[in-house]
Amino acid sequence: MNQPNKLSLLSLAFLLFIGQTWAQEQVDLEMMHRIKTEGISKSQIQDISFHLTDYLGPRLSGSTNLRNARAWTSEKFQEWGLSNIKIDSYGEFGRGWNVRKSYIAMKLPYYAQVIGYPKAWTDGTNGLVESEVTLLEITSDADFDKYKGKLKGKVVMAPATLTLNPAFEAEAKRWTDQELEDRKSINIGGNNARYTPEMLAQMRAQRDLDQKLTAFLLAEEVGLRITGTRGSFGTVFHTRAGSYSTDKKPTVPEMEIAAEHYGRIYRLLKNGKSVSIEAEIEVEWLDDDYKGYNVLAEIPGTDKNLKAEIVMLGAHIDSWHAGTGANDNAAGVAVMMEAIRILKALNIQPKRTIRIAIWGEEEQGLFGSRGYVQKYVADRTSKEKKSEWDKISAYYNLDNGSGKIRGIYVEGNDMVVPIFEKWFEPFHELGAKTITRRNTGSTDHVAFEAVGVPGFQFIQDPIDYGKGYHTNMDLYERMQIADMTQAAVIIAAMVYNTAQRDEKLPRKPWN
Amino acid sequence: MNQPNKLSLLSLAFLLFIGQTWAQEQVDLEMMHRIKTEGISKSQIQDISFHLTDYLGPRLSGSTNLRNARAWTSEKFQEWGLSNIKIDSYGEFGRGWNVRKSYIAMKLPYYAQVIGYPKAWTDGTNGLVESEVTLLEITSDADFDKYKGKLKGKVVMAPATLTLNPAFEAEAKRWTDQELEDRKSINIGGNNARYTPEMLAQMRAQRDLDQKLTAFLLAEEVGLRITGTRGSFGTVFHTRAGSYSTDKKPTVPEMEIAAEHYGRIYRLLKNGKSVSIEAEIEVEWLDDDYKGYNVLAEIPGTDKNLKAEIVMLGAHIDSWHAGTGANDNAAGVAVMMEAIRILKALNIQPKRTIRIAIWGEEEQGLFGSRGYVQKYVADRTSKEKKSEWDKISAYYNLDNGSGKIRGIYVEGNDMVVPIFEKWFEPFHELGAKTITRRNTGSTDHVAFEAVGVPGFQFIQDPIDYGKGYHTNMDLYERMQIADMTQAAVIIAAMVYNTAQRDEKLPRKPWN
Repeated sequence: MNQPNKLSLLSLAFLLFIGQTWAQEQVDLEMMHRIKTEGISKSQIQDISFHLTDYLGPRLSGSTNLRNARAWTSEKFQEWGLSNIKIDSYGEFGRGWNVRKSYIAMKLPYYAQVIGYPKAWTDGTNGLVESEVTLLEITSDADFDKYKGKLKGKVVMAPATLTLNPAFEAEAKRWTDQELEDRKSINIGGNNARYTPEMLAQMRAQRDLDQKLTAFLLAEEVGLRITGTRGSFGTVFHTRAGSYSTDKKPTVPEMEIAAEHYGRIYRLLKNGKSVSIEAEIEVEWLDDDYKGYNVLAEIPGTDKNLKAEIVMLGAHIDSWHAGTGANDNAAGVAVMMEAIRILKALNIQPKRTIRIAIWGEEEQGLFGSRGYVQKYVADRTSKEKKSEWDKISAYYNLDNGSGKIRGIYVEGNDMVVPIFEKWFEPFHELGAKTITRRNTGSTDHVAFEAVGVPGFQFIQDPIDYGKGYHTNMDLYERMQIADMTQAAVIIAAMVYNTAQRDEKLPRKPWN
Repeated sequence: MNQPNKLSLLSLAFLLFIGQTWAQEQVDLEMMHRIKTEGISKSQIQDISFHLTDYLGPRLSGSTNLRNARAWTSEKFQEWGLSNIKIDSYGEFGRGWNVRKSYIAMKLPYYAQVIGYPKAWTDGTNGLVESEVTLLEITSDADFDKYKGKLKGKVVMAPATLTLNPAFEAEAKRWTDQELEDRKSINIGGNNARYTPEMLAQMRAQRDLDQKLTAFLLAEEVGLRITGTRGSFGTVFHTRAGSYSTDKKPTVPEMEIAAEHYGRIYRLLKNGKSVSIEAEIEVEWLDDDYKGYNVLAEIPGTDKNLKAEIVMLGAHIDSWHAGTGANDNAAGVAVMMEAIRILKALNIQPKRTIRIAIWGEEEQGLFGSRGYVQKYVADRTSKEKKSEWDKISAYYNLDNGSGKIRGIYVEGNDMVVPIFEKWFEPFHELGAKTITRRNTGSTDHVAFEAVGVPGFQFIQDPIDYGKGYHTNMDLYERMQIADMTQAAVIIAAMVYNTAQRDEKLPRKPWN
């Protein structure tokens, strides 16, 4: 207040800063136009999507198909003239596992095919299992005795508890303007715990009982365990029951079957009717390479001061094993591949290096992206910074299906909001304009955010993502090709703007 | 105008007639109350539904399961103390066919299970078929030559043309009051032809080509033909390709597979990638009894003048073969069985005889109900009337899934409108009040209507009937037990009222 000179200087600095920000965020509209033109009129999204799904198949972590997918991706990068293409190991993942045969049907009280799939990494059945089904009604330790010595080679199941309701609401949707606006609001504080202490105690007790049951069934040498899953009308969600651990401990062969088929067997048994099942699982274990990999490729930077800096874009290519991981996440990979293809096709000479990362093993715990970060960026536990920590301006990720981009989550990074607002302007008419300060989780940008490097995931129209992801029906038909074309254009623009910006994107403090 | 005496007489007759109608349609509210109480508090709908679906399985016309279902139904009638229980042959149907094994998977470019089912009455594959898939691109007679001599033992398919769109509208619904009101309106005249002459010509040409293709594939001894179907997300609609004809002509083994799986194979082939399939169909033919049957049972009438007259209620018990025909039409059978169970449990002594008919072979052309009508009611071609023609007051049918009753179609029978309006009054609060003069088709009441005997089908909430009927997923979970409980109560009331009414229900002229 009494230091006019200083105040004037501050005012001047402020004005200069504002001016500079405005200058920085001037968007190169001609380039935006060229990106749109290339992306919309020469889109290769459909072809890439076909290859990633129909052609390469399910891409479970460690599987032969995933190996093929990495090879195919890097060949595509080669074909497009990208640089520094690498299939880069980030460390050990575990055992590969392929399904060679899978079949299950009910034989009694009448023959009926069952829609079912082996749970990931379970052992095979060693030929056809034919057996009556034993219903395991185990709710306490004492119940195990009822079954001891009686289950060898048998098909077993626990009671079914799922209730299926008709879909009185549409299973596919796009966000309305109001819903997008609502996605901006953030509530501070309050008790957000989803579970009461009683619920947690009950869950722990159930988990302990489940683990005991798993060990019991293995010891009893059951022939096959069947479980029901979420989903209905022939859609089956996936989980794993076996292990990719290199300790090679055996697991019970296990299949998850359509909820209705599971319900049928359960109701028959509860009503005192015999049910017999015939089933076969043949699997192949891959023990020649336990490493996990990401595929990396670049458009090298050209500015002598900035080319050591990096803008990253990526998506995970691994999937679950009975669909072809179309919406989760061939869609993200196809969009990211297309985004870098667009930039390469336009022969841009970016100031910073643009690097695409096709992550492995996301579904098993973000292993690919976390492995990359650990190897090149920083150790999130010790806080040790590595070579790329201060070089990466931003990492852009796509992993919420194939719906078009409606905006972006900035993970509480207030400083990027005005920047992204400017960058999204040319895409308002394509439906993308919502900048929300909210976080979003559960995919690879989290690995970067965890070490203080800006990582972003986009708001996408959900379409019917929730109905099909992680299921046997996550197939090519789920992919919305027009939506993905829009997404690729927007991401190419975001990456371009990040590469050309005078400064790296502002960061939140990492402490 | 100038004949006052006659006019007065007419007026008097009119007033007497009105008075009589009012008197007739007084509803016995105590009985309505007893029916509701029995039906709602002691409903056996759930147990009957379980047995018809889970326990008895798919009930394809002529199959072992359908035989078992007829036996189970008649035993149930016995248990309830019904009279004159008969498994009544109406004439010849054809060959029975059971699936003993069904399996299909893709082997190349990678192993993937395929959701697929044999088309009804096709021949088996005689062991495992393993073959590359040949895409048949046949749009004219000349195209056959391309494939001649090259298809023996091969798996073949035609191009896929289905496009799958996300479900932006709810797949299950209940009628709104407005929609029910709209169901009353009838448009007269106009050209209602769904197809132009050009479209019809094109359809005929396509049908001819299809028939030629079928004959060609049989002559070439292909190993398996696969086709796509309506449905998505694992739901597969059924048709038949084979024949139940007693001439025993061989057919090509044929499977219909999930649209996405069909699309995948097609896209791979169109992109020049090899696809190989392994598949097996084992079927069993039943040649010991070609007859078709209905199950009949009664609560005999007790009024000496009216007991020879009949009120009928019924539903078809046959289904398609990969689901368990839950909504189509175990639901209808369960409701009709429950309706007569309610009446029997109340120990009513009906004036007219109440007869339930559990029809066979509806899905193949209303054979059961038409056979019954031909045998007992009338010949619809020659117009010859048989013993029951003037005895049946009404036939009530249920075959639009398991959604609750919202009203009734009176098939243009203006005379029954005021009667049914009165009869529905006690059920308005249960959601049933719409009397529409419209026709509805495609199920067994048509057989009675065709010979001038009043046949009625109810307006039901569709729920998700359209999504699951005739599919592999028409299973127990589709049945809305609470809705069916309502339906059974209403039908029991309608049947009771019809049995007790002084006159038979008014008929439209049959000429």
